[in-house]
Amino acid sequence: MSPSADVSAASLPTSGSQGHTTRNTNPYQPVGDFLSNVSRFKIIESTLREGEQFANAFFDTETKIKIARALDDFGVDYIELTSPAASEQSRQDCEAICKLGLKAKILTHVRCTMADAKIAVETGVDGLDVVIGTSHMLREFSHGKDMEYITKSAIEVINFVKSKGLEVRFSSEDSFRSDLVDLLALYRTVDKVGVNRVGIADTVGCASPRQVYDLVRTLRGVVSCDIEVHMHNDTGCAISNAFCALEAGATHVDVSVLGIGERNGITPLGGLMARMIVQDREYVTKKYKLHKLKEIEDMVAEAVQVNTPFNNYITGFCAFTHKAGIHAKAILNNPSTYEIIDPADFGMTRYVHFASRLTGWNAVKTRVGQLGLAMSDDQVKLVTSKIKALADVRPIAIDDADSIIRSFHLTLEKNGELSTNGDAPVEAQPEVAAN
Amino acid sequence: MSPSADVSAASLPTSGSQGHTTRNTNPYQPVGDFLSNVSRFKIIESTLREGEQFANAFFDTETKIKIARALDDFGVDYIELTSPAASEQSRQDCEAICKLGLKAKILTHVRCTMADAKIAVETGVDGLDVVIGTSHMLREFSHGKDMEYITKSAIEVINFVKSKGLEVRFSSEDSFRSDLVDLLALYRTVDKVGVNRVGIADTVGCASPRQVYDLVRTLRGVVSCDIEVHMHNDTGCAISNAFCALEAGATHVDVSVLGIGERNGITPLGGLMARMIVQDREYVTKKYKLHKLKEIEDMVAEAVQVNTPFNNYITGFCAFTHKAGIHAKAILNNPSTYEIIDPADFGMTRYVHFASRLTGWNAVKTRVGQLGLAMSDDQVKLVTSKIKALADVRPIAIDDADSIIRSFHLTLEKNGELSTNGDAPVEAQPEVAAN
Repeated sequence: MSPSADVSAASLPTSGSQGHTTRNTNPYQPVGDFLSNVSRFKIIESTLREGEQFANAFFDTETKIKIARALDDFGVDYIELTSPAASEQSRQDCEAICKLGLKAKILTHVRCTMADAKIAVETGVDGLDVVIGTSHMLREFSHGKDMEYITKSAIEVINFVKSKGLEVRFSSEDSFRSDLVDLLALYRTVDKVGVNRVGIADTVGCASPRQVYDLVRTLRGVVSCDIEVHMHNDTGCAISNAFCALEAGATHVDVSVLGIGERNGITPLGGLMARMIVQDREYVTKKYKLHKLKEIEDMVAEAVQVNTPFNNYITGFCAFTHKAGIHAKAILNNPSTYEIIDPADFGMTRYVHFASRLTGWNAVKTRVGQLGLAMSDDQVKLVTSKIKALADVRPIAIDDADSIIRSFHLTLEKNGELSTNGDAPVEAQPEVAAN
Repeated sequence: MSPSADVSAASLPTSGSQGHTTRNTNPYQPVGDFLSNVSRFKIIESTLREGEQFANAFFDTETKIKIARALDDFGVDYIELTSPAASEQSRQDCEAICKLGLKAKILTHVRCTMADAKIAVETGVDGLDVVIGTSHMLREFSHGKDMEYITKSAIEVINFVKSKGLEVRFSSEDSFRSDLVDLLALYRTVDKVGVNRVGIADTVGCASPRQVYDLVRTLRGVVSCDIEVHMHNDTGCAISNAFCALEAGATHVDVSVLGIGERNGITPLGGLMARMIVQDREYVTKKYKLHKLKEIEDMVAEAVQVNTPFNNYITGFCAFTHKAGIHAKAILNNPSTYEIIDPADFGMTRYVHFASRLTGWNAVKTRVGQLGLAMSDDQVKLVTSKIKALADVRPIAIDDADSIIRSFHLTLEKNGELSTNGDAPVEAQPEVAAN
């Protein structure tokens, strides 16, 4: 599924930066928004915590260390690890990763209990991500505690972690099905106690973008600490919700490689990069080693034995493949017409399909050039109609199309018709409309 | 990658409707919004148009008919087909599908030219989706026309299609990089001419949810006709953007099966269903045959030779898999704690992993019951610690866990310790925190 395996496509060189300077061209200047952190967000990478809850995940120590090093090299701000209270090996792995001396801060994610916190602070982590369910559902069916008990525990645990000189985040769980007033009261309390961050979690993936914006914006007015968001993707909004949270003043986004986590997972690292580079290319390209993305995704995909989805953001085999004739034509004129992301920023390349019934003569013309052949535009149009006729009958590979082009070229050569432009005009081949 | 192949998970019966009546439980009543069409949206299914532009797609006539029939049976409102001007076979296929007598209305998607429109109206379709690029980028690098020319063509084509008694939609292309004033003027003009729908297309996948909401809301005040949206997924917002468009007054959403289309595609049918069922379960379950979703996705995945992504909405192999002990425990008490969608609505089932180091004793207790064995809670806690100890060393399959349980049970039986509750209290096994 790698681009190089895509044999029925013609690889075209990606343009230099010049071709993309107008990529984001929009007739309007963005309206300034003092709340927005889209140009100064931080990443909390949770492949080694949320990702370990993915159905297929079993990370041995060596794999964990390899992943942690790769994420650190990529430039993530924080790496979050499974609770050392989960198992003895989890605790040892946590200690081992803390000893690597990574640039990224190391966090571990624990329940809001003194027992868990005490184990965690001894591992050498830079901080604790503390969590407790606050929704009616979780209070009734999970831990059975009331808000008074939750608040009391939170204060105790936060004070303890701070007394050890570590960073501490306090998050509710299932925040979007929690009572808003209870939630805000709890966040205000922990903010006053001196928590470093509060977290909002869409634990079941039910939140929608404008709902997220509203809650974060409201919370922004209640607390002075940082705000972290953790978004599950059950209903397809994990990237959008993270983005809207940043627009509303959130500061930190939880991600995992390929989004792996409970059920179908959370905001994916690559997907967030795709979204954010469109928003602020300079911030994203300077801060993160984007050309390492595919390598990291491949590493994690192999570790959890899944294939990278065919339609994965940026690294999916077709993310920069153009097929409809009208697309191919414009892309050849200026890549920004149908690409909002420059594949070169991620070390990827674009492909323009020409071996299909939807092809246009501009794409074929490029292929003719790649084969080192010379033809007039009218001749290219004629051979395009031959390719489309075959593609109408059966799927054709690049070899088939190349054969047609070469055979046509040979005939022209024999007849002494090469490189002339005086042929009778050939009607332009129809190009399929696309939006 | 089907759920039935997931051997290291314990299948639990899905609850009846009773377990999920409180699924959406939120302490707040939704605030009414007269703009919103989330409870009365329509689907324009474009697997046979946008989907045909997917890199791997080659649909022969038989496959097209099979897909069209399946989509019709599912209950989509419209089926959109590739332009009959694209190739002779495309034209014939269009005619063949029109003759099937489906309940869904059949549309074809053409460039805004009289030549294309004339071919299209003869195929027997119910309507034409007309499109032209309006952004500065496309005007300069694709078709080279100015707004005056675009407006003139639009009026001519719309009047022609209406004169044939067919439905007509007019869409801009790359709407979010088009001049807003030009765009609104154009839409107002075509609305006055009597177009049935106007379309907004995020052709390059650059739009963000609140931006979409604002544009659709503005447009809602300018035109009286229906509003359709077409959202590409390059930056992960295709589902969110469609949803926010509906909230702002859009009426129709373009989708394709698995989201296949140019590059990494558009809003997926299944993903939209996941989003909308959370919003209005009654509307979605009454209108669409949701239990057919997996069958349709499998059919299309096979036709374009891709695997369903591991993390696909609803039908991905892990969409309803629960792993962390704290999740498993709550899910066993009430599935709505960690599921916003009832898998049974889609004919799917949930899985609770227990063979991992993150397991908890509640999940193991369920497995003990499934094996037909009887143990006290304290005994279950003891065997849980044995399972976690092995899972710490290597990945374990369900067989491994079952062996441990059976062997433990045998020892208890030999020692005459079965079904007693008077053992010395065993400390509860830690459960991993999760959000």
